[in-house]
Amino acid sequence: MIIILRPDVTQKEITQVIQRVEHYGAQVHLSQGRERTIVGVIGDVRVINQDEFMLMPFVDRVLLVSRPYKRASREFSAQNTVVSMDGIKFGTDEIVIIAGPCSVESRVQMLETAHAVREAGATVLRGGAFKPRTSPYAFQGLGEEGLEILAEARAATGLAIVTEVVSPDQVDLIAKYTDMFQIGARNMQNYPLLHKVGESQLPVLLKRGLSASINEFLLAAEYILSHDNPRVVLCERGIRTFETATRNTTDINAIPVLKERTHLPVILDPSHSTGHWQYVNAIARAAVAAGADGLIVEVHHKPEEALSDGGQSLKPERFAEMVTQVRAIAEVMGRSLSTKSISNED
Amino acid sequence: MIIILRPDVTQKEITQVIQRVEHYGAQVHLSQGRERTIVGVIGDVRVINQDEFMLMPFVDRVLLVSRPYKRASREFSAQNTVVSMDGIKFGTDEIVIIAGPCSVESRVQMLETAHAVREAGATVLRGGAFKPRTSPYAFQGLGEEGLEILAEARAATGLAIVTEVVSPDQVDLIAKYTDMFQIGARNMQNYPLLHKVGESQLPVLLKRGLSASINEFLLAAEYILSHDNPRVVLCERGIRTFETATRNTTDINAIPVLKERTHLPVILDPSHSTGHWQYVNAIARAAVAAGADGLIVEVHHKPEEALSDGGQSLKPERFAEMVTQVRAIAEVMGRSLSTKSISNED
Amino acid sequence: MIIILRPDVTQKEITQVIQRVEHYGAQVHLSQGRERTIVGVIGDVRVINQDEFMLMPFVDRVLLVSRPYKRASREFSAQNTVVSMDGIKFGTDEIVIIAGPCSVESRVQMLETAHAVREAGATVLRGGAFKPRTSPYAFQGLGEEGLEILAEARAATGLAIVTEVVSPDQVDLIAKYTDMFQIGARNMQNYPLLHKVGESQLPVLLKRGLSASINEFLLAAEYILSHDNPRVVLCERGIRTFETATRNTTDINAIPVLKERTHLPVILDPSHSTGHWQYVNAIARAAVAAGADGLIVEVHHKPEEALSDGGQSLKPERFAEMVTQVRAIAEVMGRSLSTKSISNED
Amino acid sequence: MIIILRPDVTQKEITQVIQRVEHYGAQVHLSQGRERTIVGVIGDVRVINQDEFMLMPFVDRVLLVSRPYKRASREFSAQNTVVSMDGIKFGTDEIVIIAGPCSVESRVQMLETAHAVREAGATVLRGGAFKPRTSPYAFQGLGEEGLEILAEARAATGLAIVTEVVSPDQVDLIAKYTDMFQIGARNMQNYPLLHKVGESQLPVLLKRGLSASINEFLLAAEYILSHDNPRVVLCERGIRTFETATRNTTDINAIPVLKERTHLPVILDPSHSTGHWQYVNAIARAAVAAGADGLIVEVHHKPEEALSDGGQSLKPERFAEMVTQVRAIAEVMGRSLSTKSISNED
Repeated sequence: MIIILRPDVTQKEITQVIQRVEHYGAQVHLSQGRERTIVGVIGDVRVINQDEFMLMPFVDRVLLVSRPYKRASREFSAQNTVVSMDGIKFGTDEIVIIAGPCSVESRVQMLETAHAVREAGATVLRGGAFKPRTSPYAFQGLGEEGLEILAEARAATGLAIVTEVVSPDQVDLIAKYTDMFQIGARNMQNYPLLHKVGESQLPVLLKRGLSASINEFLLAAEYILSHDNPRVVLCERGIRTFETATRNTTDINAIPVLKERTHLPVILDPSHSTGHWQYVNAIARAAVAAGADGLIVEVHHKPEEALSDGGQSLKPERFAEMVTQVRAIAEVMGRSLSTKSISNED
Repeated sequence: MIIILRPDVTQKEITQVIQRVEHYGAQVHLSQGRERTIVGVIGDVRVINQDEFMLMPFVDRVLLVSRPYKRASREFSAQNTVVSMDGIKFGTDEIVIIAGPCSVESRVQMLETAHAVREAGATVLRGGAFKPRTSPYAFQGLGEEGLEILAEARAATGLAIVTEVVSPDQVDLIAKYTDMFQIGARNMQNYPLLHKVGESQLPVLLKRGLSASINEFLLAAEYILSHDNPRVVLCERGIRTFETATRNTTDINAIPVLKERTHLPVILDPSHSTGHWQYVNAIARAAVAAGADGLIVEVHHKPEEALSDGGQSLKPERFAEMVTQVRAIAEVMGRSLSTKSISNED
Repeated sequence: MIIILRPDVTQKEITQVIQRVEHYGAQVHLSQGRERTIVGVIGDVRVINQDEFMLMPFVDRVLLVSRPYKRASREFSAQNTVVSMDGIKFGTDEIVIIAGPCSVESRVQMLETAHAVREAGATVLRGGAFKPRTSPYAFQGLGEEGLEILAEARAATGLAIVTEVVSPDQVDLIAKYTDMFQIGARNMQNYPLLHKVGESQLPVLLKRGLSASINEFLLAAEYILSHDNPRVVLCERGIRTFETATRNTTDINAIPVLKERTHLPVILDPSHSTGHWQYVNAIARAAVAAGADGLIVEVHHKPEEALSDGGQSLKPERFAEMVTQVRAIAEVMGRSLSTKSISNED
Repeated sequence: MIIILRPDVTQKEITQVIQRVEHYGAQVHLSQGRERTIVGVIGDVRVINQDEFMLMPFVDRVLLVSRPYKRASREFSAQNTVVSMDGIKFGTDEIVIIAGPCSVESRVQMLETAHAVREAGATVLRGGAFKPRTSPYAFQGLGEEGLEILAEARAATGLAIVTEVVSPDQVDLIAKYTDMFQIGARNMQNYPLLHKVGESQLPVLLKRGLSASINEFLLAAEYILSHDNPRVVLCERGIRTFETATRNTTDINAIPVLKERTHLPVILDPSHSTGHWQYVNAIARAAVAAGADGLIVEVHHKPEEALSDGGQSLKPERFAEMVTQVRAIAEVMGRSLSTKSISNED
C-alpha cells in the first residue's frame, strides 16, 4: 500500500500517518520528494483499513500494490489448474466444447440437441432448468423436471452436464443431477450462492458479470476457492459497453489477461458475447486463437422455436461447421479438441 | 412489434411472415416501401416469440414498440404511487432522507449515528447486517446481531429502518426487524430474491444495478410488483462507465427519465454514486433539484474507523450541512423535507 | 512515479532500475517489503520515459503520482480563474447562461431566438455556422454567411457570441466575428485546433469529449493554457455510456470533481447531455445545484423546424421557465444570474 | 421511418401526422393496434426532418429503418472492395501486415525497424511524423523531417508507407511522401480532414474512434466515400469501456459485424486495442481467426527507448513469431499473407 500525501503536508501530519501504519503492525518507508511525500507501507496490508488513510485531509490518494485476490492468482500457483469432471479436463492442451440449448424445454428438444452436439464434437451438454430472465413475463424454466430431462440426456449420450443454479437453496437439489454448476453473469456477485457452490466441492463454471472488471471476476472466483474448492472454470461472456450492434462486447483481451493473472482454466461463450448466431463461429475461432481453454455455445435443434435465446443459437449443422473450424485453429496452436471415451452411450 | 424485411424479400416470404403472425392470433399491417417492406404486428405481442422472426433469413430486424414492463409504467398508473411506511411517505411533495452507516458495526456506532442523523433531519435509518463484499476477506456484516442493534436504534430514536437482504432465505428473518428491505445493486437481477420480497408485502428499496439500463431497472421492479406488492421505491446509485475519477457515474438523467416512465418513487444515493464524501453534498443537492423524491446517504460517527465505505461516508456535521442545503433546494422546488412525529423517542 | 517490481526480482535487477532512474537525474527511495520491492522516484518525472521501466521484465507496474496537467491544476492556481468577455465573467458568483440554436439557419430564426433568449435572461448567444455532423448527408452549416447573421444578432441584442470552430484554418476568420470560440466534443483532442485557438488569445469554451476522462479533459485545456491563454471555460456535455434512454449520460459528478481539481470555470450543457428537451430543465437545475458556473442551452424559436438538434431544443417559453427555476436555485446557493448592461441594444 | 404515437392520440392528431409526412412527398401506411397507432413512412426519408415528428407531443418515438450510410453499405456493393496500393491489395484472400514504430524518431530507428519488419513478413511500414498526444508535454513528432525518413525507409526496403495526418492543411504535404493516409481514432469525426483526404484520392486507413459506434464508424467512412474515393480501409483499434486491465477493449465482434454490413476491407490494431505488448500476439491471431483482412502492429527495434507507445510495441523477434502464428491461422482460414515483389530493395 502506498499513501501519497498532499503537497502542503506538515511534519506533524506525516508522523500521524506513520504512527497509524505502525499501529497495524506494518512498517513505513518514507520518500520525501520535491513535490510530494510518499509513504510506502510494508507488511500484511490486508489487515489495514485503507479508508482510515483516505479520510485524512492531508492524504491525496492511497494506492494498492498487491492484487486483492490470493488463491486465484498466478503467484499462488504457477502451474495451470486442471479441473476434471467425468473424464473431461479443463485447463490442459485439450479444448473443451460445451454445447446445448439455453433452456431445457422438452425431452425431444433436449435429446435431439444432445445427440447432435455429441456427434459434432461437444463433450459437455448445457441447458438451463432454472432461468433468470430479465422480464417476469418470459419463460422461467422447467425446474426439477428440466433436471430430470438433463439426466436422461446424459444417460442417453454420455455427455457430462452443466446447468445453472440461481439460488443457494437449489444447490443441493441440482447437485444430485449435474456434473458442474453454472453461475450466470447476473449472479457473479451473489455471495451466498458462491459460498454454497464452494462448499459443494462440485466444479463450477463461473461467468463474468456484465460490468465486472477482471479483478472483480477473480475476486468472485476467490469466494469459491476460499472453501478449498479449486474446481473453478472462468467464462468470459461479453461485457456491456456503448456498442449496440451486438448484444454484448466480447472482451477478447480478457483471455490473455486472465491466462497471465490466474492459473484457472478460461473459456468463452460466443453466443452471449455476440447475441447473434451469425457472429458465433467467427468469435469461437477467435477465442481459441487467443488461447481460450474451451467454448460454451448455444445450440438448438430448432432455434426458431426456442423459448429463449433463439436468435443467438446455432443450428446443429452450423455448430458442426464451427467445431471443424475450431479444431483446425486448435491444431495450429498445438492443441486439440477434448474427446471422451463414452461407455454408457446408446 | 415491427418486422423489417430485407430488401430482396420475395412475395412468398412475406406471406410466410404473415401466416406466422396470424398463427399467434395477431394481425398484420403491411407497408411496402421502395426500399423496404415492413410488417406491423397488432395485438398482444407478449405471447409472440420474437426470435422466430429474427431467425428468418429474409428478416432484417425486429423492433419492439411497447415498453416491456407493464405495472411499473406510467400508462398503468398516471398517478404517483405513494409508498408509506411507519408514518413516512415516499412519492409525495415531501422528500425523505435516509441516512446511516454502510454496515452495522456495534451498538455504540449505531446508536450514536442514529441520534446524529435524526437530529440533522433524517427519518429513516440505514445499516447493513448482511454485507455483500467484493472480496471474501472483507468484513461481511454482523448478521442477526446487527439486526438486533438496528431494532434497538429504532426503539431509541423512532427512526424507521431499512436494511439489505442478499438471499431469499433471509427474507423471513429480516422481515421481523426491518420496516423496509433494501435490494442492493448486485442483486437487482437476483430473481428468487425479488420474488421473495415481492411476496413479503413489505416496502422494498430497489437499487439500480451497476450496468442496468433504465428498462431493465423497471423490469426488476416489475418482478416485485407482479406479486401485488406495489411498495417499491427505486434508487439510482450510479452506473459503471469509463470514468475512474469517481467510484461510479451518477446517472442524474435517470431522475427525470424515471419520473416520466414510472409512477414509482425515485430516490438517489450520492454516497455510492460518487464514492467520495467530498462530492456527496453537491450531488445530493443536484438530485433534489432534478426532482428526486428522497436521498439515501452514508453517515458514520467516525468514518475513519468504518469497517466499510468509510471514504464515502459523511461525518454527522457535514451531513447536517447537507440536510440544510437540500431543504433549501426542496423549498425552491415547492417541496419540503419529510418529518415524522416520533412518539417512542427517548 | 512509483515502480513496483515483481516478487522474484533479483538484487542485480533492482540495481539496474536504480541506475536508470539516476540516469534521468532523479533520485530513488527503495522500499523492500516481504512481498514486494517498490522504487519511489523523486525529482522531475516529466522527463522520464515511463515505458522504459514498464518494459523491464521484472517490473510489475508503474504508477504515476503527480497529475499529468500542470497549468490547469488547482495547485497551479488556488484561486478561481475568471474568464471575462464583453462584460461577462465566468467563474465568479454569477452564473452565466448561454442560449441559442444549434445551427444558424436564417436571419429570422437567429434574430427571433436571440431576442427571446435575451429577454428570458441569457447574456451569451450560441449558434453554429460550421457544423460537424455525423452524417455527410445532414445540414453542414451556413459558413461565413452564418457568422454575419451572428454578428447582426449581436448588434441587435447586445448579447455576446460563442460559435464553434472545427478546423485550424477557420480560426482567423471566425475570430473576426465571435467573442468566444467553442471547441466541440468531437474536437476536444484536435491538437492543431487547440494550439491555434490557444494562440488566438480569445476565450475558449472547451467541451468534454464523449469518452474523455476528466484527466484527458484537463490535458486538452492544458494545450490551450500552454499558449499563455488562460481564458478557458470547461463544459461538461454528457459522456457515452451503455444507457440509451438518453442521448448521453450527464456526468454530474464531473462538476464537483472539476471544481476541486482545477481553477477554471465549469459549465454544463443539459441539451446535449440529455438529448431530449423534456429533461433539459431538470438537468439545468441539477447542474447549478451541483456548483456549475453556467449553462449552455439549445433554444429554437420553432424547434420542430430546426435543421439540427430540434429534439433537444427548448422553445422560448420553456427556456424562460428554466431561467426562473435556475435563478431560484442559484440564490439558494448564494449566487445570482449574470446580467449585462447592454448599451447597444435596439 | 416509423412513427409510434402515444396511446391517447386523437384522430385529429393522426391526421396532422399524415399531412406532414405527405408534405415531404412521402406516403403513409397506418397501423392502428389495440395499444398503439403506428405510422409507417414510405419514400425517401432522407429528406424528412425527423425531429419535427419527435417534437409532436402525441408522438412517442420515431424509429429509423434504413441504415444511415449508403455508399459504405453492403447493399451499395455486394462485392468486397479491394483497396490497392503499390502492389498491395486490401480486401482479398491475402492478409496485409502493416508494422513499424508509433513515431518516427530517427533514421537509425526507422531503418532498423523497417528492415526487421520486412524480413519478418510485413509489406507496409507505419510510423508517425505528426503525433497527436494527450499531453502537450509529450513528444509531438519530427514533422516533415520524419516524412523524409519514411521516404528513405521506403526506398531502402520497398515497403509501402502509411502515416498519420492530423490536420487538413498537412494533407498536400504528406501526400508527397506517403502511399496511404492514416486517420487516427481521435480524428475519426474530424470532418474537414475527412473531406480533404477524400479529395486526395489516396487510400485512407480510417481508425475507429474510442467511443464510436459501428454506425458512426461507417458514417465517417461515408464522408471519404462521398468524394468518389472508394479507397478506405477500416481499422478496429479498441474501444473505451469500464475495464482498465487493458488500455482499450478490442471489439473483436466488430470484425464479423463490419464484414456483414460493409464491402470495405477491415483490419485490426492489436497494439492499441490492448496497450500491452504481452497481449498483442494473442489478439493478432484472434483478429485473423475472426476474419480480419489485415493487421497494423507497433514494432520498435528498442521498445524500451521508444519516445511513445513503447509499452505496447513488439521487439522484432516477437513480431516475427507473431507473423508465423498469424500465417498459420490464415492458412487454416483458406487465406495467406500478402507478399510483395520488391524491386527496389537494397
